[in-house]
Amino acid sequence: MSYSVAVVGASGVVGEELGRVLVDRAFPVGRLELFSSRRSAGKRMRFGDTEQALVELDRRELDRLREFDLVFLCAGASTSRLVRSSLRADSRAADARVVDFSSAFRADPGIPLVIPEVNREDLPLDATWVAVPNCTTILLLLALAPLERAFGLQRVIVSSYQAASGAGRLFMEQLQRDLTSLDPADPGPSPAFNVLPRIGEIDASGVSGEESKVAFETRRILARPDLAITATCVRVPVLRAHSESVLVELKAPAGVPAIRQVLQGAPGVELRDEPETGIFPHPRGVTGQDGIHVGRIRAADQERAFWLFLTGDQLRKGAALNGVQLVEILLGLA
Amino acid sequence: MSYSVAVVGASGVVGEELGRVLVDRAFPVGRLELFSSRRSAGKRMRFGDTEQALVELDRRELDRLREFDLVFLCAGASTSRLVRSSLRADSRAADARVVDFSSAFRADPGIPLVIPEVNREDLPLDATWVAVPNCTTILLLLALAPLERAFGLQRVIVSSYQAASGAGRLFMEQLQRDLTSLDPADPGPSPAFNVLPRIGEIDASGVSGEESKVAFETRRILARPDLAITATCVRVPVLRAHSESVLVELKAPAGVPAIRQVLQGAPGVELRDEPETGIFPHPRGVTGQDGIHVGRIRAADQERAFWLFLTGDQLRKGAALNGVQLVEILLGLA
Repeated sequence: MSYSVAVVGASGVVGEELGRVLVDRAFPVGRLELFSSRRSAGKRMRFGDTEQALVELDRRELDRLREFDLVFLCAGASTSRLVRSSLRADSRAADARVVDFSSAFRADPGIPLVIPEVNREDLPLDATWVAVPNCTTILLLLALAPLERAFGLQRVIVSSYQAASGAGRLFMEQLQRDLTSLDPADPGPSPAFNVLPRIGEIDASGVSGEESKVAFETRRILARPDLAITATCVRVPVLRAHSESVLVELKAPAGVPAIRQVLQGAPGVELRDEPETGIFPHPRGVTGQDGIHVGRIRAADQERAFWLFLTGDQLRKGAALNGVQLVEILLGLA
Repeated sequence: MSYSVAVVGASGVVGEELGRVLVDRAFPVGRLELFSSRRSAGKRMRFGDTEQALVELDRRELDRLREFDLVFLCAGASTSRLVRSSLRADSRAADARVVDFSSAFRADPGIPLVIPEVNREDLPLDATWVAVPNCTTILLLLALAPLERAFGLQRVIVSSYQAASGAGRLFMEQLQRDLTSLDPADPGPSPAFNVLPRIGEIDASGVSGEESKVAFETRRILARPDLAITATCVRVPVLRAHSESVLVELKAPAGVPAIRQVLQGAPGVELRDEPETGIFPHPRGVTGQDGIHVGRIRAADQERAFWLFLTGDQLRKGAALNGVQLVEILLGLA
């Protein structure tokens, strides 16, 4: 038994990681097609342990997506909207199960938004379109969900340290290039030797797109529309693992040992919390790994307020792996 | 009129910046001696617009420090302690006014801990030993002090993004070297392409030395021993400007326009707060400048809770400039 797979936006950083995850998990890929924009079409790319040419996703190919068993959408919100309207415009039933990595439909109550370790129960097994949450949200919720279950969350305050990969391949290349070629004294907003506190568009209240996603998606996934959560999202010169400095206020009394115990056994979470001996979460230490690392757990300034610091591979658990996990559940493979 | 100046630890990153600041401010330096450890002694170094050899600070030179008009201590806490006990052991009155960049005596109530823009009134003009606050604290307080005066601070939550310069020249060199020579997939805790959430020693409650300094010094300088303030301090691959993501809770009602207005006119503060058009604080944009940049001012999750993001040159306003400003006040030059 194998599945026909279409990957839209295959040449991007998430598409590339998806290829690795499918191989690592021995996912039964049958026929495979890799779609791209016109610009990249014809180029050959490595995807997992195969190599093949990218095909432009034109009108005709768009119609053919319905015939695949699985469609992974890694090309951004506007392409996801295009694919969805195309699938719905046709009265024939589509075979495809679609995994959408974009933000296009994450707010649609009819579309599951799921992190398997957190809210697997929100994924109906007959779902035909599932949304993968924002990467910063996924990594955060692996740590928050166990705390919500054990103690209840009162308030969450996040400052993020996000890798260049989240802004795509061109941005990663700019970072690498500017590190060696740009004068460190150049005052421009290069990502090299710099920190950029704006990710996404700024809305009328001054909040960035990324900051809105973290708050909205956390509330939705935890089914806590009342949760007080606020974030500042910041790009840092790291290649592909995001980090987050998190202050949580809990509803029930708790102490550091109890929090450690809850997180220690949580799926997808590994403690790295002996900072006095040099063991703490850092992006290099988690790159390429499936789980997140959590540490610096300690009391903050108020009763029931605690700090923690987490880091996880943005492309892997923050995107590709989470998408493949959803498919494995839908297909009864997990 | 000019002043004889001794710089202890002259070859470090703060000592070097001190040379630049003295020249930039046309400070009347007369006789100048640059002291170092035995290891660096004899090397010639550029200091401001002069160049001279480093002299080992041995027992004899230690005794001679009392004869200078000004002594800048840029060599760390243990050297500062040594100099202080040496000056006090001798019954002759010392001429020297000492500016101590280290953390050795910041908790000593008899030693002024002053940021001129914030608590100039705490600097007695006959002070013979003054402490320069921690760099992260100085940058933070340029923004917090005006808010304390205008609205009162209820609570402050900080996550920092600190430059390599704060860990000294060797660390900056390691960052530069690892960026080009270390495999990005190496999982070790290199500063390159990484984020290190531990600055200083970890105490029994899990708090780092840097985090303790920020909280303690903020409370002391604002004369607010009751202030709720807590920080997570993190090293990022930036060369010499620190950034801070800050959530403030205010006592009095306030809005974003009122906060902007207060910060706009505050000494040492420049607003960079039009993120929708790409204008926001970032380390490259503030490097080498005297003031801090503040932006991303917006409402957070609760009434009277607001976010802001600030960045400032850690070596300049965060250290050397603040020290020279203190001397200018003591000598009646400012």
